[in-house]
Amino acid sequence: MKEFFKVTDLQTVLEYRAKFPQVKTEEIPLVETVGRILAHDVVADDDLPDFPRAIVDGYAVKGASTFGSSEGNPAYLTLSGSIAMGESPEIAVGPGEAAQIATGGMLPPGADSVVMIEHTEAIDDTTIEVYRSVAPGQNMIAIGEDIKEQTRVLLKGQLIRPQEAGLLAALGRQMVTVYQKPVIGVISTGDEIVPISKTPSRGQIRDINTYTLAGLIQDAGAVAISYGIVRDNFDTLFKKCKLALEQCDMVLVSGGSSVGARDFTVDVLSDLQDAKILVHGISISPGKPTILAKVQKKAVWGMPGHVVSAMIVFARVVRPFVEHLSGQAAGQKKEIRLQARLSRNVASRQGRIDFIRVQLRPVEGQLWADPVLGKSGLISTMVKADGLIEIDINTEGLDKGAEVEVLPML
Amino acid sequence: MKEFFKVTDLQTVLEYRAKFPQVKTEEIPLVETVGRILAHDVVADDDLPDFPRAIVDGYAVKGASTFGSSEGNPAYLTLSGSIAMGESPEIAVGPGEAAQIATGGMLPPGADSVVMIEHTEAIDDTTIEVYRSVAPGQNMIAIGEDIKEQTRVLLKGQLIRPQEAGLLAALGRQMVTVYQKPVIGVISTGDEIVPISKTPSRGQIRDINTYTLAGLIQDAGAVAISYGIVRDNFDTLFKKCKLALEQCDMVLVSGGSSVGARDFTVDVLSDLQDAKILVHGISISPGKPTILAKVQKKAVWGMPGHVVSAMIVFARVVRPFVEHLSGQAAGQKKEIRLQARLSRNVASRQGRIDFIRVQLRPVEGQLWADPVLGKSGLISTMVKADGLIEIDINTEGLDKGAEVEVLPML
Repeated sequence: MKEFFKVTDLQTVLEYRAKFPQVKTEEIPLVETVGRILAHDVVADDDLPDFPRAIVDGYAVKGASTFGSSEGNPAYLTLSGSIAMGESPEIAVGPGEAAQIATGGMLPPGADSVVMIEHTEAIDDTTIEVYRSVAPGQNMIAIGEDIKEQTRVLLKGQLIRPQEAGLLAALGRQMVTVYQKPVIGVISTGDEIVPISKTPSRGQIRDINTYTLAGLIQDAGAVAISYGIVRDNFDTLFKKCKLALEQCDMVLVSGGSSVGARDFTVDVLSDLQDAKILVHGISISPGKPTILAKVQKKAVWGMPGHVVSAMIVFARVVRPFVEHLSGQAAGQKKEIRLQARLSRNVASRQGRIDFIRVQLRPVEGQLWADPVLGKSGLISTMVKADGLIEIDINTEGLDKGAEVEVLPML
Repeated sequence: MKEFFKVTDLQTVLEYRAKFPQVKTEEIPLVETVGRILAHDVVADDDLPDFPRAIVDGYAVKGASTFGSSEGNPAYLTLSGSIAMGESPEIAVGPGEAAQIATGGMLPPGADSVVMIEHTEAIDDTTIEVYRSVAPGQNMIAIGEDIKEQTRVLLKGQLIRPQEAGLLAALGRQMVTVYQKPVIGVISTGDEIVPISKTPSRGQIRDINTYTLAGLIQDAGAVAISYGIVRDNFDTLFKKCKLALEQCDMVLVSGGSSVGARDFTVDVLSDLQDAKILVHGISISPGKPTILAKVQKKAVWGMPGHVVSAMIVFARVVRPFVEHLSGQAAGQKKEIRLQARLSRNVASRQGRIDFIRVQLRPVEGQLWADPVLGKSGLISTMVKADGLIEIDINTEGLDKGAEVEVLPML
């Protein structure tokens, strides 16, 4: 029989990302920014720190005053006073002088280093012995040593981790402009699917994809809206898609991986206003029956109905689109791949990318990837799996012991 | 000078986790469970699926009816009807018979496999030609093939990923009992620290640790409550600690890494009711001045004031306690470590664990770890860093080119 649809290769599908605009931005309090995507470059207004800071407890000195000192031959310095925390010192430190200072204190004029308290002994109220020499710049942070004024410290499209939030705090940014979280609608279809609140009759199964997809959407930093289950009826699905398109930045229609259902989804998507079917089948396995339509300016996906296929398509195909919408700069993202050895032979067909579920097993410092076998309708195989390996389009399979890269799903 | 506190090794510190009870549990809707920790084992009530399901579009048959068939020598089968989706079929399939079925449909009595529509041709309304043989069990999911009735499918203490949520959906669990998110208080101390809303005078700096720690707490699956900045005053810190202990499951007192401030934090923690100082210094670098107290049944930490030290101590010391409180089973967790090569020599001192910030750089399939140099007061070094490497207590340093494991902070 003839091939019933013409598949697109994964790389081409991913290039379609450029056809979809990023979501709008919003200004939010700094404390809510971790996990969000920065919507503008950040340039430091000031040096950080803008005064020289001690990073140990001890005495602010001119380093030269301590040169050559040792346990046997200590330097004797005269105490010129004590530095209060959080204040600009009123005293200065000259040659042969020292001022008591705590971690975080501001070095007084004249001081260029701090000698640790452990390397000193107080002789009396006005004199200390110093047993080690310190170099200028030692045990202190110089002006601008952390960040220099006018440096571009963060870039638009960067993920805000706790440390980026810390840097924004250091710069006094109370409100930060980030991309909104993309809102993604999930419509489940299929006459055999019932809500999880219902006990399925024989021949029916509960809706799984709504929950796996909502979880994946959340993990991708977006917001999921569930539109429930739609029976295989053109008008109902059409209306539901139209509603979801009004309310969401992207829509996933889950189910319909049978030929009939697939055609049906394509018909509905084609009939929406300003719709264009970009992809009708991808050369990957599982996930071949995936559909991508551009409707107005939004991506609408016909996801495979098998739960494993839908999860893998989300992880490898849809998620890069979600990240694109959410403003994440593709070049800046560092993807995590784990090195492992394959514990058994895996067959693959040329002409498509195969995604293999694997379980990870550490043995004496070596990570082994055990393929998880089982049909793509079995949710239990994804529960066993820790990640995926990818067998590329020109490879016929991998041998036991092969080094593989694992995309973790932990 | 004498060592001013006696350090504890990291392993011993981590064993103190057992002294602290887990947080309470709560029942929440399934859709909110991703990222939460399951608080009980889950046993399947039923087989999944509880009827034999087609996983392709085609014809339900007895496999034996197709044995030996090929393009040149097709099998001719008689159509006994069509299976409606989501319903228990009223027809049966005998030898030499076939019933039309779509993906997800229930196999009729007598059928043991499905022949794909691509491998058939309809001759007329009652007869089809079959060009390939199918084995019994092929292209279908048998009763219990996904999950067998009474199987323990999920364990108490397991992290709920999208696939575990999917499995719970398949089992019809609308409400799920999970551990509450631990609530962790953050108190910032230091006379030189000002809120980020304030322009620091000379000698003052903005509060960074509240934001980095809140972000790390959030990433660890817990809830952060900020108690603002407390001046170095015994009564104020004592009262704030008491309040935070009433409202939180764990408290972090940030700042006070100077000898004086550290003693001060220890004094305050010791004076709280039913308090015991468990740890006063850890043999790690950075992070040595860390304090752990058990106050009533709760952990209170004196965190180092330097921002890098505080972040590393959280990641490697405090976070395992947060996971313990949150019910996560330590044995079940798979930690992600990336294999990389060190791009330059790194010195280390015996007798302590050194944590080195590294930036990751992929070069032709090999990941290189570039040490990020810089004092532990510099937030910019954490912004550059992608992760940490750990040099163990008995190693004097690592050579350029050494294979290292990187704990990602991505």
